[in-house]
Amino acid sequence: MCGGRSGGGKVAAVAAGLDDPWARAVLTAVANPADELLGRLLDRCGAAPVVAWIAGTGAEPAASAELAAGAAEKLRTRLDRWRARYERLDQDAMRAAAEAIGARLVCPGDPEWPTQLDDLGAARPYALWTRGGGDLRFAALRSVAVVGARAATAYGAHVAAELCHGLGERGWTTVSGGAYGIDGAAHRGALAADRPTVVVLACGVDVPYPCGHSSLFQRIAADGVILSEWPPGTVPSRHAFLIRNRVIAALSRGTVVVEAKTRSGALNTARHARELGRAVMAVPGPVTGEMSAGCHLLLREWQAGCVTGAADVLDQVGLIGEDMAPPPDATVLPRDRLDPTSAAILDAVPARGAAGPATIAVTAGHDLDTTLRCLGLLAAGGFVERAPTGWRLPRRAAP
Amino acid sequence: MCGGRSGGGKVAAVAAGLDDPWARAVLTAVANPADELLGRLLDRCGAAPVVAWIAGTGAEPAASAELAAGAAEKLRTRLDRWRARYERLDQDAMRAAAEAIGARLVCPGDPEWPTQLDDLGAARPYALWTRGGGDLRFAALRSVAVVGARAATAYGAHVAAELCHGLGERGWTTVSGGAYGIDGAAHRGALAADRPTVVVLACGVDVPYPCGHSSLFQRIAADGVILSEWPPGTVPSRHAFLIRNRVIAALSRGTVVVEAKTRSGALNTARHARELGRAVMAVPGPVTGEMSAGCHLLLREWQAGCVTGAADVLDQVGLIGEDMAPPPDATVLPRDRLDPTSAAILDAVPARGAAGPATIAVTAGHDLDTTLRCLGLLAAGGFVERAPTGWRLPRRAAP
Repeated sequence: MCGGRSGGGKVAAVAAGLDDPWARAVLTAVANPADELLGRLLDRCGAAPVVAWIAGTGAEPAASAELAAGAAEKLRTRLDRWRARYERLDQDAMRAAAEAIGARLVCPGDPEWPTQLDDLGAARPYALWTRGGGDLRFAALRSVAVVGARAATAYGAHVAAELCHGLGERGWTTVSGGAYGIDGAAHRGALAADRPTVVVLACGVDVPYPCGHSSLFQRIAADGVILSEWPPGTVPSRHAFLIRNRVIAALSRGTVVVEAKTRSGALNTARHARELGRAVMAVPGPVTGEMSAGCHLLLREWQAGCVTGAADVLDQVGLIGEDMAPPPDATVLPRDRLDPTSAAILDAVPARGAAGPATIAVTAGHDLDTTLRCLGLLAAGGFVERAPTGWRLPRRAAP
Repeated sequence: MCGGRSGGGKVAAVAAGLDDPWARAVLTAVANPADELLGRLLDRCGAAPVVAWIAGTGAEPAASAELAAGAAEKLRTRLDRWRARYERLDQDAMRAAAEAIGARLVCPGDPEWPTQLDDLGAARPYALWTRGGGDLRFAALRSVAVVGARAATAYGAHVAAELCHGLGERGWTTVSGGAYGIDGAAHRGALAADRPTVVVLACGVDVPYPCGHSSLFQRIAADGVILSEWPPGTVPSRHAFLIRNRVIAALSRGTVVVEAKTRSGALNTARHARELGRAVMAVPGPVTGEMSAGCHLLLREWQAGCVTGAADVLDQVGLIGEDMAPPPDATVLPRDRLDPTSAAILDAVPARGAAGPATIAVTAGHDLDTTLRCLGLLAAGGFVERAPTGWRLPRRAAP
């Protein structure tokens, strides 16, 4: 965890040698997401030098010439655009907006960063703005994306809600957009099972879009995560939804399309899932309407898995006999393999309710920095999770 | 064609040396269908010696000892059963019943025999009793089986009818089982497209089962084919339906299941289709009911093709760019490659209406035997078809 929460002094740092997290926050505001040229540049030389270069306070990174081989013109055009936006960016206002709503910035390398997003390669998000009481990495460890049409039928909405309720009951997290129709029904089904859900927005995490979902987003924020690649205050654009879809696909083990016409944003998410090697699943429906035609197309032409409920989904993405156990490719370790410090800090997390890091540090007998670092690692391992009031043991499926 | 129509003298022939077709007719009455031991025996030594052996008027066929190696007891038990039934069989009554309803017997090797049934190996029917104005072989050349639940929903019945109507419009024949629900809707959809359809019964072709489909069977008989492995007068038994299903699967290029529970006779037909290397297809439906659960099971676990209409079905069984053309594995030849005698006889078939073989023979200037033989071959090639009043040119898709 980094950025927003840690307070002021960042603007001054731009001139001197700004920290990497805030540089990434700046990039979410000045660059379009999924810019692979920028992504490669960040991989080579880190965010701070790139932003210093954009700001005109630092030299051109050495790697840029190499990366721009044959694309010098392209990089120059981008730089002009980034600079124009950078000059208009009010960093203090951005930070204030984030703090006002309790948004935090999650960057690659942070304990809360869901490492499955790294499968996006150079197109992985520069950083994620998040909001809500859940721990993103922990919530997304065993998650399924459930997406579909805005103009869903009653059938589709019913099936999406039932499916996500069933996934929730089995300890799986639902990831979706926040749109009307299938997305909304998916979140509601998961919430009805008392499971946190993850909503990936194509606008700022403080922008209730669609506005009819304001109260739904409030419910999601309680225990779940609202996240976005765009900084607070950003209003959604048509193009943003398609860019956003790759994050939904990459966060989860597989994507289920519940209802979709043959031309649909949900099929775009499914395409990302397929490209990422994630499971692609579709719920069949009546062939007499057009709302399931996209699902049938996936079944027919993409060999998508035919799923009719949560059990079918877990057959496709779950681990046989380990539905309630941590997945082997996550970093979850058995409790008795923790190092003594982490074990002590885990023991200091209360069995009921949550505690702040200072309380935990005192109970465990370690300093605050060590405690925060260990809590982050413990969260990444699924041993603890972030709650609105501090850190707590996971509600279910504790390893 | 053989048997029923050619009249009397057959009973006497049993004692002397009965003809193969009538011997097969007798076997449909005395043996259970799909008896592979009997099937192999017939392949080795022909039907007449086997029936003579059963009748006690002929020696045990030499092949029987070899075939029964290790199964002597089994063959003995069968023989006892066949003999018991043979003694009770009134062959005159069987022939009279067949003649009364205009049933004909189609045997392996006959021009009207659909050679795709030979894929059943030793389990192919001994002979088929047929009724109706259509030519079985021609009708089944490009056919699809459409089957499903008796207790179909309005949705399923609608989809089955639409599907078969669409297949009919594209020149494809629907094969189904005559039951209430999906089967009936399938036949009706095909008839509404003015296409003959093929119904495979599990009882005698004169037995209207279910009785509510009496008038449907009458409509099918006008231009289509009603067929059965059981002799006229046979009432259906539970077991017969499952035996019958292999014929539905083998006759057609592929089997479409429209609605079925997870335990269903339609899945049995699909299993036969899969074993025969035919396409297996399923129509998806709402996941909220149980009537499409069998279809979803086929999609999920059997990798069945997901079909939503006739076009999808033809994608699975049709030939790209040749939907209206004869299939390459059939014996259809271009008209200009016919031998001169066949060409003359084909020219003698009237352009409108039908003509009897004697009329055609006179017009063509050939004798009746030659004419009948050539008409059989022309029918097998799809150039002519049998009508209630003689032979005629096919109504559609003439090669």
